[in-house]
Amino acid sequence: MAGEEEEPRVTLYTAGTPNGWKAAVLLEELGLPYKVRPISISKGEQKEDWYLKINPNGRIPAIVDHGNGDYAVFESGALMMYLCDHYGDGSLFPKVEDDKARYEVIAWLMFQMSGLGPMQGQANHFVRYAPVQIEYGKERYVNETKRLYSVLDKQLEGKEWIAAGRYTIADIACFTWVFIHFWSDVDIEEFPNLKAWKERIEKRPAVLRGLDVPEPTKFKEAITDKAVREQMINEIRAIITPTSAPK
Amino acid sequence: MAGEEEEPRVTLYTAGTPNGWKAAVLLEELGLPYKVRPISISKGEQKEDWYLKINPNGRIPAIVDHGNGDYAVFESGALMMYLCDHYGDGSLFPKVEDDKARYEVIAWLMFQMSGLGPMQGQANHFVRYAPVQIEYGKERYVNETKRLYSVLDKQLEGKEWIAAGRYTIADIACFTWVFIHFWSDVDIEEFPNLKAWKERIEKRPAVLRGLDVPEPTKFKEAITDKAVREQMINEIRAIITPTSAPK
Repeated sequence: MAGEEEEPRVTLYTAGTPNGWKAAVLLEELGLPYKVRPISISKGEQKEDWYLKINPNGRIPAIVDHGNGDYAVFESGALMMYLCDHYGDGSLFPKVEDDKARYEVIAWLMFQMSGLGPMQGQANHFVRYAPVQIEYGKERYVNETKRLYSVLDKQLEGKEWIAAGRYTIADIACFTWVFIHFWSDVDIEEFPNLKAWKERIEKRPAVLRGLDVPEPTKFKEAITDKAVREQMINEIRAIITPTSAPK
Repeated sequence: MAGEEEEPRVTLYTAGTPNGWKAAVLLEELGLPYKVRPISISKGEQKEDWYLKINPNGRIPAIVDHGNGDYAVFESGALMMYLCDHYGDGSLFPKVEDDKARYEVIAWLMFQMSGLGPMQGQANHFVRYAPVQIEYGKERYVNETKRLYSVLDKQLEGKEWIAAGRYTIADIACFTWVFIHFWSDVDIEEFPNLKAWKERIEKRPAVLRGLDVPEPTKFKEAITDKAVREQMINEIRAIITPTSAPK
């Protein structure tokens, strides 16, 4: 990671999920020295007492800022704002003085936090993880995810970035979800502006480094390699929904 | 509403829902002169072209700030931060200088935006509105709502308010959802700290005024009148899920 030989300023508690990647990508973009404490969700580490002192909600990611009295911030949206306000130059998140740009970024960050993340998360649940096949649930959340993608696609018409005329935390927050679109049974080809935006972001070295935190993810190989992507989809589909017919 | 004889500073586009009430309660708490443009969700006004220029996501609430070049802000979490930063004295939302308190409020606001609101909203859907009865969906979201209530209940142990040692937008945002707990099949008696906190907030005149925007809600009568509350639950249950057996 960036600056790994420097004294870490921040500890990032995370796992390889869209919400976790948001924090890692941002730390890489900021070039802030940080260390990573992986949290094993399968072992339930996020519900252990020591971690609940950092995040009372028992979810990842969270940070502890050693440069600010070991101050803990939880919720990916909150820690992104915090890190930029404390360690950014205003490019990734406009400063208070840059009033209208700042609230445009906050609105789209909230769109991701309240809409895209929770709804695509539910799509993943019903498509991938639910112990029973419930068509109603799949359709409800895959369709809502597609609607949210269409809102982003329209917002990106004739624009390179979602808000404030530049690459910001609103882009990072939405990107890590759109990145795994195929996992949620959403075809990115339906959203050409969003697809072009996704490919712009996937070229950023800091983004590619962030996606390797806490460990390299297969999703990253799937960016460039369609065969890997299709194999991955099929393998995981076979494991998770053994009774469903192949598409 | 507060200051209705003054020139309105802000127009609020809203409907009588937890997300809409957040904005109205906050405007009342701030004492800011505002006018209300009710949005008929049943008529789909929130998807009309003129409104999509205000909120590209086609949801309520949104504001237009006439004191800032008719600047539009969408997403309830974003507009609450915006209004306080522009028109507040730092009590409801700590200013930038009050660093640690500010980010504590933002973290809990994000907790509401990304967790409590979306998950209780899905509980409402499966308990109340889904055209089919899906036990898996009801259980999943009612249980997650209860888990989130338990996080708040623990956070409120020995404390009057959720964050920063005072009544803030984190309380307002969570309150409007906890306020309709019975609608989501959650028994507040299981969460004594949360219940006491809810009752503290329900005593605030600005809150009671906000709950009347855009029109008086039956939910408000249900605060104090158990018979009204039970009648309301039964009536609406009978309308919405005619085939389900009474509980």
